[in-house]
Amino acid sequence: MRLFNVLSPEEVRRIIRTTVAPLPSEIVPIDQAGGRVCSERVLSPEDLPSFTRSTVDGYAVYSQDTFGASDAAPALLNLVGEVRIGELAPSMERGSTIYVPTGGMLPEGADAVVMVEYTDVLGDLIQVLRPVSPGENVIVKGEDFRKGDLVLEPGRVIRAQEIGALSALGVHRIAVHVRPKVAVLSTGNELVPYETISLRAGKVRDCNAPMLMELCRKKGALPRYLGILEDDPTEFRVAIQKALQDSNCVVLSGGSSVGTRDFTASILDELSGGNLLVEGVAIQPGKPLLLAVCQGKPVLGLPGHPVSALSSFLLFGSYILDRLQGRETPEYHPSVQAELALNVPSKPGRTDVVRVKLSRAVGTCRGVSKGTVEWQAIPLFGRSGVLHTLTEADGFILVPPDKEGLQEGEFVDVLLYGYTQYE
Amino acid sequence: MRLFNVLSPEEVRRIIRTTVAPLPSEIVPIDQAGGRVCSERVLSPEDLPSFTRSTVDGYAVYSQDTFGASDAAPALLNLVGEVRIGELAPSMERGSTIYVPTGGMLPEGADAVVMVEYTDVLGDLIQVLRPVSPGENVIVKGEDFRKGDLVLEPGRVIRAQEIGALSALGVHRIAVHVRPKVAVLSTGNELVPYETISLRAGKVRDCNAPMLMELCRKKGALPRYLGILEDDPTEFRVAIQKALQDSNCVVLSGGSSVGTRDFTASILDELSGGNLLVEGVAIQPGKPLLLAVCQGKPVLGLPGHPVSALSSFLLFGSYILDRLQGRETPEYHPSVQAELALNVPSKPGRTDVVRVKLSRAVGTCRGVSKGTVEWQAIPLFGRSGVLHTLTEADGFILVPPDKEGLQEGEFVDVLLYGYTQYE
Repeated sequence: MRLFNVLSPEEVRRIIRTTVAPLPSEIVPIDQAGGRVCSERVLSPEDLPSFTRSTVDGYAVYSQDTFGASDAAPALLNLVGEVRIGELAPSMERGSTIYVPTGGMLPEGADAVVMVEYTDVLGDLIQVLRPVSPGENVIVKGEDFRKGDLVLEPGRVIRAQEIGALSALGVHRIAVHVRPKVAVLSTGNELVPYETISLRAGKVRDCNAPMLMELCRKKGALPRYLGILEDDPTEFRVAIQKALQDSNCVVLSGGSSVGTRDFTASILDELSGGNLLVEGVAIQPGKPLLLAVCQGKPVLGLPGHPVSALSSFLLFGSYILDRLQGRETPEYHPSVQAELALNVPSKPGRTDVVRVKLSRAVGTCRGVSKGTVEWQAIPLFGRSGVLHTLTEADGFILVPPDKEGLQEGEFVDVLLYGYTQYE
Repeated sequence: MRLFNVLSPEEVRRIIRTTVAPLPSEIVPIDQAGGRVCSERVLSPEDLPSFTRSTVDGYAVYSQDTFGASDAAPALLNLVGEVRIGELAPSMERGSTIYVPTGGMLPEGADAVVMVEYTDVLGDLIQVLRPVSPGENVIVKGEDFRKGDLVLEPGRVIRAQEIGALSALGVHRIAVHVRPKVAVLSTGNELVPYETISLRAGKVRDCNAPMLMELCRKKGALPRYLGILEDDPTEFRVAIQKALQDSNCVVLSGGSSVGTRDFTASILDELSGGNLLVEGVAIQPGKPLLLAVCQGKPVLGLPGHPVSALSSFLLFGSYILDRLQGRETPEYHPSVQAELALNVPSKPGRTDVVRVKLSRAVGTCRGVSKGTVEWQAIPLFGRSGVLHTLTEADGFILVPPDKEGLQEGEFVDVLLYGYTQYE
C-alpha cells in the first residue's frame, strides 16, 4: 500500500489555485455570455446615458427660475414646447419651460425637471409650486458610465445585469474564457453503463458519471462521458492518455479498492512527470482524492462512493473548473443559518461534510442577531455508498477540523446544494 | 391617472401562487433533466444495491465466528475462495471465509466483512484479530432504496444527486414540467433594439430585454424577444394578443410615463376579462408592477428602469416561472451575513430592495453566533435608471416595511445575485 501525505482542504485549494491556469479566450455575443467568465477588461465605449434625460413626467426648467416657488407664490414660466420621447429636444431660455415625459431628453439650457404633480397649467403659462435644485429629476449624460469607465473586470462572472449594462452601452460581443472540456471516466469492474436496463448479478450502474457531468454543466463546462475503465493498469494508462488528448480536464471516479487506488496514483504520478500533487485530503467523506497535472491538464481522481464523489467534486472539482475559466471565486458562501437538531460526532483533525435536511423550526429556537433562526438542520447520517441521504438533503454543513463534533442546538451555516459558490 | 391599490410583496406572491398553475409534463432523458422540475412521483423500480456488497477490502465471515477474536486469541477461518468484483459470489459455510474487494458481492451465508487490516494470512487459514458485528462493512441489498420506495416527489428540482440516484436505479427517463415559453417585450418610443450600433439623439438601447431573457434562462424558461412596442394603445393590444398566442407567459418592461402605464393597465385589465390582479406593489424600486392572467397565461408588466425591472423580475417574475414549472419553492433563502457599513434610510410601509457590495470586514465587526461576521455590506445608492450599481453589486438586502431604515453596524442577510432561490 502506498503511503501518502494527507493535506487539508485549504492546501488542496491552494495547490489548485497555483497549478491550474485559465484557458484561452473566445469572443461570444453578449446574449450568449450568461454565466461565462470575462477574460478582458471592458471599458465603456460611450457615455451612458448618451444624453441628459428626465426621470419623471414634468416640466424642464432652469432651476434658478423655481427658487422660492410655493403654492402661495408659484413661479410662472412660459410653456414653449414639448419634448417627444426618443427625439431631439429643442433648446430653451430662462423664464420658459418645456414639457418632458419620463426618459425624454432634457432641453439644452434646462438643468432640472419639475414633476407634473407640482405644477398647474394656466393656458400657456405653467405655475411651478415647488422649487427644484440643479440636477433634480434628471440623469445626466454619462452619469451611469462615462466613456472609458471600467465596466467589467477579468474574472467576473457575467450575470443578467452585466448583460443589461453591456447591451445598454452597445457592447455586443465580449471576450470570455472558453468552456473547459471535461472527460469523465469511471473505474471499477463492477460497473456497467448507467443506461443498462437489466443488471447482471454483482453489477452496479455507473451513477457517478451522469451526476458529475451535471455538476460540470452547472459550472459551465462541457462534459463528455468516456465510459468505464476496467481495473487494469495498462488499459488505464492508455485511457487517461486518450482522455487528455481532447480535453482540458479529466475527472475519474471509482477505484475504491486499495489495489486500484495504488496503481491509479502511480500512473497519475508517472503521467504528470512525478508530480502527483494530492494523494489524500483530511476530509470525510472524500479522503482518497488524487490530483495531478498531466500535460498541463488537471486530472482529478475522486472516490468511488457517490456521496464522496459528489462532495469532493463540489469542493475541489468545481474549483478546478472555476480556475480553468479564470473565475475570481469570492470567498463568501451564501448559507441558511439553522439550529442543529441532533449532535454530530466528528473526528478532530479532519473536516467533516455532513448532509442535512432543513425543516422549519417550531418555536424551539433561540433568537440570533436580527431575528430568530427559523430553520432546523437535521443531519442525515448514512454511509457514503448510499444515495438517498443525498437526494433527501437540502444542503451540507462543514465541521471544521478543530472541532470534536457539533452539539444539538448549535447554530450552523447550511450550504444549499444548487446555491453555493461551489457549484 | 388611474387610482390603484398597492399590495405588499407577500400578497403579490400569494396571488401568483393561487392564479398561476403548472404547465403540462413531458418525458426527458435523465441526463437532460438537470434543473427541471419533477412532475410525477418516482418510485424505485428495484432494490439498490441489487445485492449485498462489501464496503471494504476484506474477508466475508459469519459474524458469530469472529466473536471474542483478538490479537491474542484470533479466530481461525478456512479461506475457501475469492469474490471477483462484478461477479456472482460463491456461497460459504460457517468456519470458512472468502476474500471480498470493496464493492464485491457478499457470499451467501456471510453477514459481515472483516477489514483486511485486521487479519493475518497463514497459508489457507485466515486469522481474524477483531470481532465484527452482523452487517458490519456491508451495504445490504435494498439498504439505499427498496423497490417501491419514493425516490422523488413532484415539485422537486432535479439536481446532480437526483440524476445520480435515478441513474443508479435504472430510471432513464423522467416526467418534468415543460419549460415555459416567455415572450419578452419592451415598450417606449425612446428604445431601439439593443443590437443598435450608433444611437440617434434621444434614443436608448433596450437593455432590459436581454437582461430579463438571461434571468428567464437561469430559471429554465425559453425566452423569446418580440421587440419594442411603440407607446400606442392599439399597437400594444395587438402585440400582447400576438405574444399570448405562442407563449406561456408574457413579460413587458417599460412604459414609465403615467400615460403609458395607464393604458397598459387598461389593456391588461380588458384582455384578462376585467381581472387585473396587481397594479402596484409596496416596494422600492419596483412599485409600478402590473400582473394579469390573460387566456390563462400570466402577463407581467415591469417598470422600465433597469434596476426596478431586474429587482421586480427576481421577486415576482422568477416566482411565476417557478409556479409554471410546478416548483415547490422552499421558503429559505441562502444569504451571507454581513455588517452594514452605512445607514440605509427607508420609508416605513414598503419593502426596500438595497443593492450592496460585499467587502471583507477588517476587525471592526462584533462576533455573532458561531463566529465572527467577516463581511461588510456596503450599500450602493443610486437611482433605478442607473445600471452601474447593479453591476457593482454582489447582492441585495431587503429592508422590511416595519423598519425606518437600517443602522450602520446592524447585521443584515445579503442575498447574492446568482445564488438566491429567486433566480
